[in-house]
Formats: sequence, C-alpha cells, structure tokens
Amino acid sequence: LDKFVIIAAGGRGERMHAGTPKQFILLSDKPILMHTLSIFPLAIPSIHIILILPADQIAIWKKLCKKYSFDIPHQITEGGRDRFYSVRNGLELIGDQCLAGIHDGVRPLVSCETIINAFDEAEKYGNAIPAIPIIESVRSIGNNVSHPVKRDTLRIIQTPQVFHSSLIKKAYKQKYRSDFTDDATVIEALGEKIHLINGNFENIKITSQNDLIIAEALLKNRLI
Amino acid sequence: LDKFVIIAAGGRGERMHAGTPKQFILLSDKPILMHTLSIFPLAIPSIHIILILPADQIAIWKKLCKKYSFDIPHQITEGGRDRFYSVRNGLELIGDQCLAGIHDGVRPLVSCETIINAFDEAEKYGNAIPAIPIIESVRSIGNNVSHPVKRDTLRIIQTPQVFHSSLIKKAYKQKYRSDFTDDATVIEALGEKIHLINGNFENIKITSQNDLIIAEALLKNRLI
Repeated sequence: LDKFVIIAAGGRGERMHAGTPKQFILLSDKPILMHTLSIFPLAIPSIHIILILPADQIAIWKKLCKKYSFDIPHQITEGGRDRFYSVRNGLELIGDQCLAGIHDGVRPLVSCETIINAFDEAEKYGNAIPAIPIIESVRSIGNNVSHPVKRDTLRIIQTPQVFHSSLIKKAYKQKYRSDFTDDATVIEALGEKIHLINGNFENIKITSQNDLIIAEALLKNRLI
Repeated sequence: LDKFVIIAAGGRGERMHAGTPKQFILLSDKPILMHTLSIFPLAIPSIHIILILPADQIAIWKKLCKKYSFDIPHQITEGGRDRFYSVRNGLELIGDQCLAGIHDGVRPLVSCETIINAFDEAEKYGNAIPAIPIIESVRSIGNNVSHPVKRDTLRIIQTPQVFHSSLIKKAYKQKYRSDFTDDATVIEALGEKIHLINGNFENIKITSQNDLIIAEALLKNRLI
C-alpha cells in the first residue's frame, strides 16, 4: 500500500515565544518542523509527506526552506480553523487504498522504529496508535477530592497515528465533536477498536520552553 | 514547627548502569544525590536532612562526600528491605510535633518554590502533595480494550510529600500494603484527605538514561 503522512503544524506557539509559531522555533540547527519532516523518509524512503500549515504561515515556511536549503520533498496544504479541519483537508489529498499516518509537527523526536512499526501494524489491524507507559504515581481529581489511579492501566498517547486511509477518511466525514482529542478518538466514534503499539519515550510534544530544552538534549544524544 | 526532610535513596539503579546505584551516578559535576540534598537548605536554611541509604552503600556515600567536598549537613540512617520500611526507619528519628517531608533521592530538580510551598501548605492542611497536570492524550487499558481518559482529571504525583509528623508517623504504624504506592496513599489509608499543591515540571524522577540526559539539560538551564 502507498504510504502517506499528514503533518499537522497549525500551532501558533502562544506558550513559548510571542510571534514565532512553535513549529518554526529553532531546535539545534534548524526549525523544529524540519526535523519532524526529515525523520519520515529516513524510516520509509517512499513515504509521501503532506504538510498542513495555516494559510498565513505558508510563505514564511517556503522562505525558511530556502534559507536552510531544506530539500525533503513535501506537498503543502492549508489548515482549517483547528486541528480537526486541518487533518480533514489533508485527507482529501489521499486516495482510498493506502495507509495514512497523522503526526504532530512538534514531535521531531519520533524514532524510525516507531514510524515503521506504526505503518506495519496499521496495515495488519487497520489502525496503530503509539503509546507509552506512565512511570510516576498518578491521581484522579474531581469534586474536591482525589484518588490514586493504578498507573499500569494508563498509557500516554503519541503520534504518528496510522490508519487504512478508507477508514480514517470515513471517520473524518463525521461532524466535529469536542471529545475528538486525537485521531484515534475520531475512528473510535465509528465503533473501531483501537490498536495500541509501543511508542518511544523521546517522542515528546514540544509545547513549552522546558520541552525545547529537553528536545535539544535528546536530539544531541540520539543514535539514528 | 521544626522541619525535616527524609531523603529516600534506596534504589540500586538496575535500569541504568550495572553496578552503580542510580543516586550515585554523576549529574553534571557530582552524584545525583548531592544535587538533591543541596536544594533543601537553599529553600529552607534551617531544615534537617535525614538520608536513608541501603546499609552496603553508606561507606561508599561517605567516601563520595569526601571526594566531592560535600558539606551539606545530614544524618544518615539505614534503609529497610523496600521503600516503605526505609521511610519508617527515617520517621523513627523525628518527633511528634514537627513537619516531615519525604523526598525521592533521584529527584534533584525539585524547585525551591515547590519545597517552600509544600512545607507551608502541610503546616496548614496536615499534608501537601505536589502534583502536575498531564499535557498529552491518555488512554486507560484493560481487558484487551482501551478508552480515552480526560487528561484534565489526572495529575502526576511528585515529591517532597510533606506531613505533620504525628500524622505520618501514625500512618507508618500500619501494616504494609501493596497499594501503598507513595506516602500519600499511606496516610489516605487512615482516612485523611489528600491536599494537592502545584509541583514543578522539571522535578522528574531519574530512572533511565534518557531521564539523565533530560536532567542534565534542565539543570544547565535552571535559574535558581
């Protein structure tokens, strides 16, 4: 099956540097988003990359690509008013008989192993959702009390979440719901069973200044 | 009230370097555990530190203190066969009318603010347990299916967990139970209500090589 990855890069970075969308912030030698795009062809050389950007960031991105001589082939399309509509725009560019991964632009540290495994398992099971255990103690809060939760029953969910394209395209024809917190929850609303696979611990979502510091350190120590 | 902190450093570090207990691994310029001990007097100059170590590590620790000219005053006591019995040994050294913090030896990045806040709040409420929100999507697993959990109902629990000493000493007279995953769960078994306070995101528990890389980076960027 043909393999696509939709990279959702709609964030505006309010939590970090005023002005610079977080996916354009420098991580080591180049913008975060360039690291993210670069890892996919390393894992799957034939993969097609679809990058979704807010309309007003497309020209900036193209300038950055020139500045950094960034030559990973990718198709660019415009985002919608939030992530759900952005991903839907991206899915319109993909046929019914392929595998579609959906990945956060600010997760540059996904491993090749996670990517390869996600596409392989999605081909077998229809979907593959990377997840990692929680190491620390967890409590659940509500109504002014809290109680302990068995941490071994919890998983932190990552991306890329990979699907048979016919399934995810069908799922994204549904009306938007506020409990669609990721793509897995969108296909779940069709009655599909979620297939969790192992993610990698380094695959953090960069949303704060601390995350950026952590990502720099992990990148420096990464063995690709 | 007099303030004590019991630093539980019983780990043997099997997940990292064979042989070296993880609390003795170098973080930047000195063993992790020295960073951990150093932060408490910075936050509360009058604090009494009780360090709990496995019997066979006490001589090694003393040698390390000489080697690194480590001069933060602390009392050392022997650990038990696991964390519960170790903390209980430490509590025997503390009177009934003070505040007792219990902290993981491998959390060197707790902030002064977290420490000060934990002792202040414990004085008012009997206990104070630092917690941080979870940023990423979470699923709960079991019986071969998983379902999404509202992440804003979950908190990751940290240390120092601080208590009125009479309360925590009474709690540790209970028989050990396998659901005692931290000190908060031990006092909860007495019917006490847990008082959560804000932890700090940098306050990670170093249990893997990646954690060590992350801690080095955060330490370098820390503004004390």
